[in-house]
Amino acid sequence: MEMNNWKKILTPYTQAVEELKIKFKGMRNEYINLDEYSPIEFVTGRVKKISSILEKAKKKSIPLDQVEEKMEDIAGIRIMCQFVEDIYKVREIIRSRHDMYVVEERDYINNLKPSGYRSYHIIIKYPVQTAQGEKLVFAEIQIRTLAMNFWATIEHSLRYKYKQNMPEHIQERLNKAAEAAHLLDQEMAEIREEVLKSQQGFQAESNV
Amino acid sequence: MEMNNWKKILTPYTQAVEELKIKFKGMRNEYINLDEYSPIEFVTGRVKKISSILEKAKKKSIPLDQVEEKMEDIAGIRIMCQFVEDIYKVREIIRSRHDMYVVEERDYINNLKPSGYRSYHIIIKYPVQTAQGEKLVFAEIQIRTLAMNFWATIEHSLRYKYKQNMPEHIQERLNKAAEAAHLLDQEMAEIREEVLKSQQGFQAESNV
Amino acid sequence: MEMNNWKKILTPYTQAVEELKIKFKGMRNEYINLDEYSPIEFVTGRVKKISSILEKAKKKSIPLDQVEEKMEDIAGIRIMCQFVEDIYKVREIIRSRHDMYVVEERDYINNLKPSGYRSYHIIIKYPVQTAQGEKLVFAEIQIRTLAMNFWATIEHSLRYKYKQNMPEHIQERLNKAAEAAHLLDQEMAEIREEVLKSQQGFQAESNV
Amino acid sequence: MEMNNWKKILTPYTQAVEELKIKFKGMRNEYINLDEYSPIEFVTGRVKKISSILEKAKKKSIPLDQVEEKMEDIAGIRIMCQFVEDIYKVREIIRSRHDMYVVEERDYINNLKPSGYRSYHIIIKYPVQTAQGEKLVFAEIQIRTLAMNFWATIEHSLRYKYKQNMPEHIQERLNKAAEAAHLLDQEMAEIREEVLKSQQGFQAESNV
Repeated sequence: MEMNNWKKILTPYTQAVEELKIKFKGMRNEYINLDEYSPIEFVTGRVKKISSILEKAKKKSIPLDQVEEKMEDIAGIRIMCQFVEDIYKVREIIRSRHDMYVVEERDYINNLKPSGYRSYHIIIKYPVQTAQGEKLVFAEIQIRTLAMNFWATIEHSLRYKYKQNMPEHIQERLNKAAEAAHLLDQEMAEIREEVLKSQQGFQAESNV
Repeated sequence: MEMNNWKKILTPYTQAVEELKIKFKGMRNEYINLDEYSPIEFVTGRVKKISSILEKAKKKSIPLDQVEEKMEDIAGIRIMCQFVEDIYKVREIIRSRHDMYVVEERDYINNLKPSGYRSYHIIIKYPVQTAQGEKLVFAEIQIRTLAMNFWATIEHSLRYKYKQNMPEHIQERLNKAAEAAHLLDQEMAEIREEVLKSQQGFQAESNV
Repeated sequence: MEMNNWKKILTPYTQAVEELKIKFKGMRNEYINLDEYSPIEFVTGRVKKISSILEKAKKKSIPLDQVEEKMEDIAGIRIMCQFVEDIYKVREIIRSRHDMYVVEERDYINNLKPSGYRSYHIIIKYPVQTAQGEKLVFAEIQIRTLAMNFWATIEHSLRYKYKQNMPEHIQERLNKAAEAAHLLDQEMAEIREEVLKSQQGFQAESNV
Repeated sequence: MEMNNWKKILTPYTQAVEELKIKFKGMRNEYINLDEYSPIEFVTGRVKKISSILEKAKKKSIPLDQVEEKMEDIAGIRIMCQFVEDIYKVREIIRSRHDMYVVEERDYINNLKPSGYRSYHIIIKYPVQTAQGEKLVFAEIQIRTLAMNFWATIEHSLRYKYKQNMPEHIQERLNKAAEAAHLLDQEMAEIREEVLKSQQGFQAESNV
């Protein structure tokens, strides 16, 4: 495909990513403005690079004129949370919004990938208004804790470095790091539990 | 009203302004990406300051608990165009979008204000997704040429400076400047006409 | 030159443009925060596209390995003002800053170009901190009124459209529009004069 | 002090934070553009809220007219890294820059705080160009891994919640989480070691 065609195809995805970033950052600001705890810590987004689209299309045997219907992560949003519980809170909010439609969910937290990868993925359809009218595009939202994100960032750069040939001892180290990240999330979850319990205790007392 | 209440009221307006800025800037980028002429030159936005809301509420006798239903310009977007014709192009695009609803239009170009002010105003209802569900808020979109904007910027700062007491000779000067701005827009419109005509001539020839 | 080399060359220019935009926008905010009149209305910036660098290098016979020393507008900043007088105020501020060095000034306001173009250009050297140490890069700052900018924007897009062959009747129209833009600036300058005079009158009275 | 005075005092700090964010983000982009590993993962910044300045001034007995000379963290920058080693790389880069001056360093990584807090702090003097000339302001740069940041974010919100009275069992949990975060950093450091070693092996082989 020619460069100009790619530009035309990718323009609504770029727009979708910009709008979704503003919307999820706005969700965070809504909590902050009201002095409430925000389940969202920060948000990033990207449009898949053309080279990565070509590579994935080849690997998954997707004809280039069908990438828009068959590739679900050309537009990608990543939402980072402090606690695992926040991930499910964010999922509920996404499900209840009227400006995007959930088409699939993939729970890699309860079913972590063999690599050790943990995250919650939601595939949505998002309506973008273009000069030619409304266009529904796919977007993939990845929701993770900061610890999951830390691990995934490093795993990604190693996978990129080694391609298919990651040495076994590095894969082992990565697995141990995935466990350490999981442990950190568990400690954090227990802190959260303790805090909630002590708040209920406090409220019970003040209701006497 | 207390500060906290204002924050709560204004949060969805801030979100609306952020989203609308991204959307109209995206409209511009869509043209630029396709190497086409963009009817939008640049976009700005603001949420009305609390002090200005209070002042306007007093002047228009709007009870403070009704500002959300009765004040239409708490969220404000300004779209600047090169040519007067572009303003009507932008208007058509706004009318055809599915993510905002036009509730009123005010044509201060064909019916300029006594002060000399010229602009096209569109009042929309815009749906914002909040933690408490969808909320429809008013927003005012002002569409103008760069020359109209130049004049309006200066008129605004003078009106702010003099409040109700603008000296007559300054008002006269402003009127002359409004005429000069109008003249500039007319010259620009004629250039546009000439360009369009010579393009048609060119196409006619190449169709022989 | 290869793409990767261009990336390496252009990276400090991109950084210079980002920093200069933040610095001149900050200058505007400084006035706004103190409730004072800002001589800067808005600021834009861009890095020259590779295709435009190549074209200009060819036209001016600059060898490609000397573009960094000989092409002064790879980094470009544009500062828009309300009044012609503001342009000279901004020039003084630029001259007095310690974080950029003026190497040349070109006054196309008192010596407008044959095309009708009016603007004040300042060429600076700007120090960028890179991973390889400090690097001094050229940047061109164009300072103009909103009316000059309006005209220049349209002239630029017509020149781009017609390349070397702008039809005479369109060039004539452009000249008339340049005069209208100049007239608008003069009217605005006289308003400014009147305002300053009436302020002095007011102060004189209150000093009685 | 009056609101207006605070605005005047804080304006150069706001400017410093904006410029420093652009500069450290630019450092990251420089690596990314050259397809190299960036020691910086992401950057945030903030100006201390007036209420927090007042609170700290009271606690540390700093007279309000001396906050500019004595409070070093009114402007704050946070730099997040993937690996502990990256922190020292970023420190070297900061020390070698010509546009900021290191005045103090505090190593809370080798000397962690009793709370479990780990980070590397650098106090700099940063020159801001204002309408009244150059002004040197303090800024505090905190450099941390993603895991340190995760822990610190939660510790901060708990400290904010409980003020001086954090329950002992929550403090204990926090300590255990600090250990888990530390463990995660250690696992990551070992992965980094392994990767570097296997690269050297690879280079040694290819040099045969």
